[in-house]
Amino acid sequence: MAEQDLFVSETTFRVRYVETDAMGIVSHINYITYFEEGRSNYARQRGHSYSQFEQDGYYLMVTEVNARYIKPARYDREITVRAWIKETRSRTLTFNYEILDTETKTLLVTGSSKHICVTHKGDIARIPDNWRAWGTTS
Amino acid sequence: MAEQDLFVSETTFRVRYVETDAMGIVSHINYITYFEEGRSNYARQRGHSYSQFEQDGYYLMVTEVNARYIKPARYDREITVRAWIKETRSRTLTFNYEILDTETKTLLVTGSSKHICVTHKGDIARIPDNWRAWGTTS
Amino acid sequence: MAEQDLFVSETTFRVRYVETDAMGIVSHINYITYFEEGRSNYARQRGHSYSQFEQDGYYLMVTEVNARYIKPARYDREITVRAWIKETRSRTLTFNYEILDTETKTLLVTGSSKHICVTHKGDIARIPDNWRAWGTTS
Amino acid sequence: MAEQDLFVSETTFRVRYVETDAMGIVSHINYITYFEEGRSNYARQRGHSYSQFEQDGYYLMVTEVNARYIKPARYDREITVRAWIKETRSRTLTFNYEILDTETKTLLVTGSSKHICVTHKGDIARIPDNWRAWGTTS
Repeated sequence: MAEQDLFVSETTFRVRYVETDAMGIVSHINYITYFEEGRSNYARQRGHSYSQFEQDGYYLMVTEVNARYIKPARYDREITVRAWIKETRSRTLTFNYEILDTETKTLLVTGSSKHICVTHKGDIARIPDNWRAWGTTS
Repeated sequence: MAEQDLFVSETTFRVRYVETDAMGIVSHINYITYFEEGRSNYARQRGHSYSQFEQDGYYLMVTEVNARYIKPARYDREITVRAWIKETRSRTLTFNYEILDTETKTLLVTGSSKHICVTHKGDIARIPDNWRAWGTTS
Repeated sequence: MAEQDLFVSETTFRVRYVETDAMGIVSHINYITYFEEGRSNYARQRGHSYSQFEQDGYYLMVTEVNARYIKPARYDREITVRAWIKETRSRTLTFNYEILDTETKTLLVTGSSKHICVTHKGDIARIPDNWRAWGTTS
Repeated sequence: MAEQDLFVSETTFRVRYVETDAMGIVSHINYITYFEEGRSNYARQRGHSYSQFEQDGYYLMVTEVNARYIKPARYDREITVRAWIKETRSRTLTFNYEILDTETKTLLVTGSSKHICVTHKGDIARIPDNWRAWGTTS
């Protein structure tokens, strides 16, 4: 669970049919997509969209992803992705995630992702200040 | 069915688990991916890969897609995408497709896609000659 | 454009990063997913979710999909899928779609899909009455 | 790297265009799909396909996924997924993975996934003996 002084974004949407697989539940792969969408919305809620970050000449490349699957979600359920920044360094960021069933609050998946800031030429770069300030509430 | 004088590429691969949905069969959406993979392999077999086409400064944008679904495919089945160029004009191309179960030869899906050649700036362009010659066998 | 007496659902969401491809725009394949999500929301707005339809013992299988691509969408843009039923017969349905940029109202993609009602055993079935009444406003 | 006495499957295919994203490289999400395809082929090469495993009444649910991203892959490159079983217990399995560029042998991604055997009713079950014997070469 996120600590009290961290900004935590919440993103809510419904499971799409195509995201299920022949087990009848959401494929484990798609939660990694949900993490990405949680990050996207985190940035929007902080006032610095990732599309702007890219237009400024950077990419936030993924260097690591981890996910633990607790309960499956099914088609049509509304789920909520909670995302927060666990750690910010000069060139890297770590996001943590919790995915819950919106109605029942059941915890479905937890996870994390690590990122490195690079320029469009591929050089490792310092994360811009407006993104580095995100780790704490504002 | 392709006419006798057309070059028809065949691309064979197995259905991935993630490509199925809660109906237990391949989601109809993924056959559009299979069409794309059929086009990719058509270009490779003709000796002009689409990655080279892009490096030469062009994109082959999709302007239309049509698919008819006849029989469903399931996880682990080997399927074959047959792809051929139905029509070539100076700036546009039309691909036709048939997707079959490789073993039983059962026809699963038929379809077509239309494409327009554009530069990386987005201007409509003449299809390069090496791509325009594809419509007939060589 | 939908006729005046038809119920038209509107579903609005943002383009996900993973839905783009190396052209920098949304892959044409993902608009077929957006059509599916438009259908899902149409059913919810009419009070009969597709998940309930499946629990009642039916599938609405896709027999045909058509899409025309007019303008590309990019990551982070908010888009709106308009979906309506063009035609209802005893065993089949036809949906029409328009996808627009939510802010600019630019038309991005139009399309249609045809469906047949089958039981979970695969037998063709009559569409239940509560789904058949959908074609007109209520 | 896999130890000498383990069976390692190799699965080779080309990156699909739709698997890239607006960074111009394969989305990190799709390597999780490649892991799944590596597992599928591992089972086929061992003579016990996962589709048969499901028909026998079981699912091998994913409980954990980890991936480390070293170098990006691009459209059209041929990649090889190496997969092997790191650990087998009575009810759980751990797969390890390496994904390489087939031509250059450059290591692109490493990862692991943990799985638990469940029946179609959702009860945890003992992994069938023919699957448990996989950890070592035969």
